[in-house]
Amino acid sequence: MAQPLSALIPRLREICGDDGVITDQHRRRTYESDGLTYHASTPGVVVLPTSTEQVAAVVRLCAETGVPYVPRGAGTGLSAGALPHSEGVLVVTSRMRRIVEIDVANERAVVQPGVANLEVTRAAAPHGYYYAPDPSSQQVCSVGGNIAENSGGAHCLKYGFTVNHVTGLEIVTPQGEVVRLGGKAADAPGYDLLGAFVGSEGTLGIATEITVRLLRSPQKVRTLLAAFETMDAGGSAVSAIISAGVLPAAVEMMDALSIEAAEAAVACDYPPGAGAVLIVELDGPAADVDAQFDRATRLCREAGAFEVRTADDAAERARIWKGRKSAFAAVGRISPAYIVQDGVVPRTALPEVLRRIAELSAAASGIRVANVFHAGDGNLHPLVLFDDSEPGASERAAEVSGKILDLCIEHGGSITGEHGVGVDKACQMPEMFSPDDLETMDLFRSAFDPDGIANPEKLLPTPRLCGERPGVRKGVHPLVAEGAAEQF
Amino acid sequence: MAQPLSALIPRLREICGDDGVITDQHRRRTYESDGLTYHASTPGVVVLPTSTEQVAAVVRLCAETGVPYVPRGAGTGLSAGALPHSEGVLVVTSRMRRIVEIDVANERAVVQPGVANLEVTRAAAPHGYYYAPDPSSQQVCSVGGNIAENSGGAHCLKYGFTVNHVTGLEIVTPQGEVVRLGGKAADAPGYDLLGAFVGSEGTLGIATEITVRLLRSPQKVRTLLAAFETMDAGGSAVSAIISAGVLPAAVEMMDALSIEAAEAAVACDYPPGAGAVLIVELDGPAADVDAQFDRATRLCREAGAFEVRTADDAAERARIWKGRKSAFAAVGRISPAYIVQDGVVPRTALPEVLRRIAELSAAASGIRVANVFHAGDGNLHPLVLFDDSEPGASERAAEVSGKILDLCIEHGGSITGEHGVGVDKACQMPEMFSPDDLETMDLFRSAFDPDGIANPEKLLPTPRLCGERPGVRKGVHPLVAEGAAEQF
Repeated sequence: MAQPLSALIPRLREICGDDGVITDQHRRRTYESDGLTYHASTPGVVVLPTSTEQVAAVVRLCAETGVPYVPRGAGTGLSAGALPHSEGVLVVTSRMRRIVEIDVANERAVVQPGVANLEVTRAAAPHGYYYAPDPSSQQVCSVGGNIAENSGGAHCLKYGFTVNHVTGLEIVTPQGEVVRLGGKAADAPGYDLLGAFVGSEGTLGIATEITVRLLRSPQKVRTLLAAFETMDAGGSAVSAIISAGVLPAAVEMMDALSIEAAEAAVACDYPPGAGAVLIVELDGPAADVDAQFDRATRLCREAGAFEVRTADDAAERARIWKGRKSAFAAVGRISPAYIVQDGVVPRTALPEVLRRIAELSAAASGIRVANVFHAGDGNLHPLVLFDDSEPGASERAAEVSGKILDLCIEHGGSITGEHGVGVDKACQMPEMFSPDDLETMDLFRSAFDPDGIANPEKLLPTPRLCGERPGVRKGVHPLVAEGAAEQF
Repeated sequence: MAQPLSALIPRLREICGDDGVITDQHRRRTYESDGLTYHASTPGVVVLPTSTEQVAAVVRLCAETGVPYVPRGAGTGLSAGALPHSEGVLVVTSRMRRIVEIDVANERAVVQPGVANLEVTRAAAPHGYYYAPDPSSQQVCSVGGNIAENSGGAHCLKYGFTVNHVTGLEIVTPQGEVVRLGGKAADAPGYDLLGAFVGSEGTLGIATEITVRLLRSPQKVRTLLAAFETMDAGGSAVSAIISAGVLPAAVEMMDALSIEAAEAAVACDYPPGAGAVLIVELDGPAADVDAQFDRATRLCREAGAFEVRTADDAAERARIWKGRKSAFAAVGRISPAYIVQDGVVPRTALPEVLRRIAELSAAASGIRVANVFHAGDGNLHPLVLFDDSEPGASERAAEVSGKILDLCIEHGGSITGEHGVGVDKACQMPEMFSPDDLETMDLFRSAFDPDGIANPEKLLPTPRLCGERPGVRKGVHPLVAEGAAEQF
């Protein structure tokens, strides 16, 4: 049986020091949610360890006493993966923010989990290197959180997800053991638990030291923005580019409604009258980039682009990206409330799924859907817009948002591209996985966490959360906080 | 308690048909080892299923009766990972060799496990695509076996291992359940058990359908061979090339002894007097390849290459690769017996480790070491040469071979680069992993296979195999069969 939390507090203070334990109600409430603010719960107690040993001691204490714990990085997650447990310990890694080593010769960085994503690139840049995974929240999100969520970013079409860039981890298991997975070398014998740990959303333990691959900064980067009259024309440009064997670093698309929002918010000055804009970025050796860039430009024109703008330096690139990067937060300018959805479809299913999304929106009174997405890898981020003062609108928006995920599954895709499952989509896992699939995952989780104390009720569906019937769809709630939306 | 095998035979015949079950002693013996022929054991019974359903029914029968089973693909493995169990069922996937789908639009191939590696590329080539992982045994080794071993190849420096190219699996778990991991999409929610399954050496189940990424055939491929007087000079050329930001598809190095062997065997006509030859292959868009190729050539000359040959078409490339590809088998021409070792060190530790290997060889009477290796990623394949008719020579060779792995561990590397652990290196796992690390792996394995029937005694050390004391080093036996050596 779990002990009451109050009994743990003195021992937590011994481990983390007085200033490393937060019990004050007001201060605890600042941790009540991650970026998905409509799931909230005040943590029982918050600890701020500064070392692997402190993390291990905290977790061992939890294991001994049966008290659940939830790990948290910078709290920018978008699936309530870091939603605190009201009777548990919230383990925040924000004080573990040391860059342990930049190993240029082996092209590796070793960092603590609280280091911000962009800090890795800042530390590597003087040596001509960078860290590739770039979630839009990269200024603030932590590398530890990126590990938990297997974070992507605009450039994962070419460079892959976080899992493709982590070569070694030191972790504290849910039983408080310190275990090493992988290292600096490319491959390790035994089970590749490193790959399984990345994206496990804190349910298998806490990463306390992280070794990542550094990539050479590209010799050249060029970006183009192409404006089309319709989404279909933009989509056929994407297909033509990929089919031609061009591998852009990023291929992003925005529809008319998201362009309208971006114009209202940041005056990004995209070509007037565009039904779709496409941003294509190429990087690599100069000769290669130039050749591919000319090809991509030509293919955009052939697909019907009525205007193509190009950027060759950082300032021009920033102008092109400005609208795209602000799009999520900008939607707040044209709609009182909205839901941000995250799903994936095979790239070839994009045109059909976008048409079906438009039909869903047309059929639901007062609901509009703005589409902003990573077109190259079929990762959609539909924004479901509604007026929360209108009776029934939030329910209709939730229904449209849910049906979009159904469309993704129906077309062989996935209920999340890069935001994770967390609490938010746990009850939808049975729509994607068979009972045998889920049982296998649960067996795996239990092998690490036999007592179920590590981030309970996240990632996999539970009867308490989802009801006894597998596949019960939980209501989706509106996301209205603009602060959270900036993290996309 | 396990049932006697004889009780299972009629039921296996019901599942796989009479011609799908081999009980004849003579025919069973043809399966007694994989490519590492010094580990041998006649399987209790051999089954040749033709479908997922048959595999699942066989495994369920094993699970119900407590009989162990061992999966086998083409049997080209080099760590005795497919060593049969004398009281168990050998499940051979060689009849499951259908290419299910070449999905050009999504750049995926779906195949059965018995399909030969090179067949995937043959099926994709008419569409302008290929399958990247290329173990030297690619003409015969199976994709299912590649999954089990996470196979690499000469080109994994640029393209990664098998795990980087598999996006979906249908597997039969050790309890006989059919489970799907991943799919055609880039990322899936939940635990990335797909990554952990790849390289699990048959201990977590049998892959029955495999979805792999197809890559565009490169526009251009160019290869150079550079001859150096010393290994140090060759090594500094490798460092210079990588430091310059050139990313070759392959960087292979051979020392004087392995060049001598290759000349004796295939008359490859490498530059006379070379103490080291370096093969560098570049692929990609033509403009890029040309620019990088000129750079690599210049860097080789600057590092002291006294001759550089270049190849621009397939015939010229084959001439350059001829010596390298024959090197392992060729060693049989200059030595009565030899051990092939497989280890990894961080690339920067290569010069030091090679010097230490030379010292080990000099100190052991009658033992020579030929070095052939993937220089770009530090994957060594030292060949320990000895005369097995000389008293004590095989023991001294085994000692040198073992000490080479110690060197790899000491320098932050690994006891296997791409051949796997199998039976051969299971007892050395404690030298690389802590008891907590190994316990975590064992917990993971037990979650899939609670009864320990799936490829028992492979991958992790057991008291029966390694003695009660963790870390006991087992003797290494000489590899003398040339047939096996061709599979490198």
